[in-house]
Amino acid sequence: MALSKSPYKGTRDFFPEQMRLRNYIFSKMAEVSELYAYEPYDGPMVEELDLYRAKSGEELINDQVYKFIDRGDREVAIRPEMTPTVARMVAQVHREVAKPLRWYSFPNLMRYEKPQKGRLREFWQYNADIFGAPEGLGEIEIIQVAVAIMQSFGANSSHFEILINDRRFVDSVFTEVLSCDDGQKTRLYRLVDKSTKIPMEKVLEEALVILQDAQKVTVFQKYLNTKSFTEVKEWLTHSQSTLPAFLGRLETLGLDEFVKFDPTIVRGLDYYTGVVFEIFDKHPENRRAVAGGGAFANLLAIFGEQPLPGVGFGMGEVTLTDFLKTHQLLPDLSKQNIDILIAHTDETSEAHVLALAQHLRSKQIKVEVFLGEAKPKKIFSYTDKKQPTFVVMMNAEEIASELQFKNLKTKEVHKLSLNNMDKIIEMIKGSR
Amino acid sequence: MALSKSPYKGTRDFFPEQMRLRNYIFSKMAEVSELYAYEPYDGPMVEELDLYRAKSGEELINDQVYKFIDRGDREVAIRPEMTPTVARMVAQVHREVAKPLRWYSFPNLMRYEKPQKGRLREFWQYNADIFGAPEGLGEIEIIQVAVAIMQSFGANSSHFEILINDRRFVDSVFTEVLSCDDGQKTRLYRLVDKSTKIPMEKVLEEALVILQDAQKVTVFQKYLNTKSFTEVKEWLTHSQSTLPAFLGRLETLGLDEFVKFDPTIVRGLDYYTGVVFEIFDKHPENRRAVAGGGAFANLLAIFGEQPLPGVGFGMGEVTLTDFLKTHQLLPDLSKQNIDILIAHTDETSEAHVLALAQHLRSKQIKVEVFLGEAKPKKIFSYTDKKQPTFVVMMNAEEIASELQFKNLKTKEVHKLSLNNMDKIIEMIKGSR
Repeated sequence: MALSKSPYKGTRDFFPEQMRLRNYIFSKMAEVSELYAYEPYDGPMVEELDLYRAKSGEELINDQVYKFIDRGDREVAIRPEMTPTVARMVAQVHREVAKPLRWYSFPNLMRYEKPQKGRLREFWQYNADIFGAPEGLGEIEIIQVAVAIMQSFGANSSHFEILINDRRFVDSVFTEVLSCDDGQKTRLYRLVDKSTKIPMEKVLEEALVILQDAQKVTVFQKYLNTKSFTEVKEWLTHSQSTLPAFLGRLETLGLDEFVKFDPTIVRGLDYYTGVVFEIFDKHPENRRAVAGGGAFANLLAIFGEQPLPGVGFGMGEVTLTDFLKTHQLLPDLSKQNIDILIAHTDETSEAHVLALAQHLRSKQIKVEVFLGEAKPKKIFSYTDKKQPTFVVMMNAEEIASELQFKNLKTKEVHKLSLNNMDKIIEMIKGSR
Repeated sequence: MALSKSPYKGTRDFFPEQMRLRNYIFSKMAEVSELYAYEPYDGPMVEELDLYRAKSGEELINDQVYKFIDRGDREVAIRPEMTPTVARMVAQVHREVAKPLRWYSFPNLMRYEKPQKGRLREFWQYNADIFGAPEGLGEIEIIQVAVAIMQSFGANSSHFEILINDRRFVDSVFTEVLSCDDGQKTRLYRLVDKSTKIPMEKVLEEALVILQDAQKVTVFQKYLNTKSFTEVKEWLTHSQSTLPAFLGRLETLGLDEFVKFDPTIVRGLDYYTGVVFEIFDKHPENRRAVAGGGAFANLLAIFGEQPLPGVGFGMGEVTLTDFLKTHQLLPDLSKQNIDILIAHTDETSEAHVLALAQHLRSKQIKVEVFLGEAKPKKIFSYTDKKQPTFVVMMNAEEIASELQFKNLKTKEVHKLSLNNMDKIIEMIKGSR
């Protein structure tokens, strides 16, 4: 029986058109990262399972991780997220290197998901993290990087918003106002996490089960109805709150037009301890998170290292691509970029074709050689499909006199001799 | 107990310095590929195991593949090589698209190896393939691409050579001259494959076991002693041999200085059917293959598709990096590339730092912000480590008059006002 030609369930084949899109997205992200002095890194695609046991949420380990036993009896997993790896790497070097560390990467990750829109089993995810920044400043820079990346694709505040919360604030409401113990807190966090997906009635019912007190449920409901930073300030009793400074910096940088307080953003993963945020698509047909991240005080503890605060975020290419398509922000990447197609129509000219191609490539010109002699008709039908900027069909007679370079965009024909190589190069580069 | 900070056995962490090296290598490869009109593609990191069962060698499946059963009871494997994936992808589209297909990729692959020099469990491998080229021409182009990649790193024929053989030639010697049946042929191929790693005496002993005929062993020994294409021609009886045309084209392109016939190159994998080659390091301390590839007539048959001839090669970053290090062909990538570090030495200037940074980044200047106010001494000690091209320390007084931009390469100090933004940008870009 013939083998299946389909990729494994929930994964994708990136044919050249899709790959150009992925490369376009990654190159923009890398460009912005470098403008902010972030450095590239990567880790292995497989890690020992213990790394995720220690830090990732339970759901990830039990239901979503691709795990197996290797031939040396080690429990290993294909990476489902990058943060544990980056923490492991930072733990190795943080004592020797200048801080803050600013790192970014584009790992391929796998999660055992039910494939659906915006969700696949294999996906690539941009990650940016800053470790060891002074209090409050890493958060701002990470949000700057996130916004700059969105802007590099042509997106603005009509397309996306950044929904923000602070786990310190939520913690203080739960602990100080609602007097929750740790168990109640965990359950309340989970309830908040899913509160936008179920009716409010249900949410309050569950809150009553957890809090066992109708008055507390009313306070919890008031929390869920907090709509702005101004209202957040009303909750705060601490003079040491970092919120005013944070908001002031967002304003200075003009980031306040993107940012909105949202009490339902708490981020499922266990390691966040401060500001948490999600970039949300504003389009009514694609209301979902494009990216998410936050601040963590103590990712290195599991490696027996001193605390080093960090802030980071991840942006998956699947959801980002959906976002860019929804808002028609993608350039046309359907065609390969070829400067010139060189063909020959008689048997004797092959060596000249190869020599011209080789010379032009040494000048950084993208050349496709039409392999083997062919009739003009066949060559034209091929150029119709491939759409190079120029085409030249060589034969002995024209090689001895002048070649005809046809510009397929302008339909102009330029007659130039092979002795006039500088002109040929100038013409091709000038048409880019 | 604290978790291990080490990566999983046989895999690597790419800290920024190593990542810049990997990016450097890949960007050169991508650049050359695009000059030859090859298009990028990628496939999933996990494939169903059957794909490798059908095409990869037995050793790969039994001893080297990372395989496991997924939660849906599918037998899957982390990709150990890219050729089965590219064949699967080409099988999906080859009937609709213009041929030849020219594709390249940089997959991360895993094999269950005993880690040693040049061999790791996880590695990245450049792959280039051409499908559907006219007879003999794909081989030439693929060798051109391979040589151009080596040259893009500054390597020449004093550093590497391309060892070539042709499975059609070996087949004809084994079948027509030595009258081998299929079983003997397979065993003889394996013997040739390892013939350089064991003493000749042993090789001939094993050949006698296989061939059962002392005279045939003498012929086999003569085969192993074939030293040049001229000697190969003496073996050939067929007038239809493609060898003269192949050699003629190599000469035309000046590739003959790199290419050498080698009877021991047969490539272990089952799918090669024509020209096979390996790029070998000439350095006596690093005599190993940097890349390998060849021509295959029928990779698509397992998908129930019509035959489509192809030629391809793979080049791993581990062996290539060893090669480049051995010959000192790598640039210095130890330092991050930062145009300017912007700091402030008083509390009130933070907003100006952030505004200047944001403006310069909008002009594609790489800016690191020194987060938080600091004393000049601390800032200088940081710039000593990070080595940006410029450093400027802002304070209220200088913001109101002139800032001092210090060029750390030339030690010059340029005094410029913030009103003179064009000059600031010109100065920074001019120092690259």
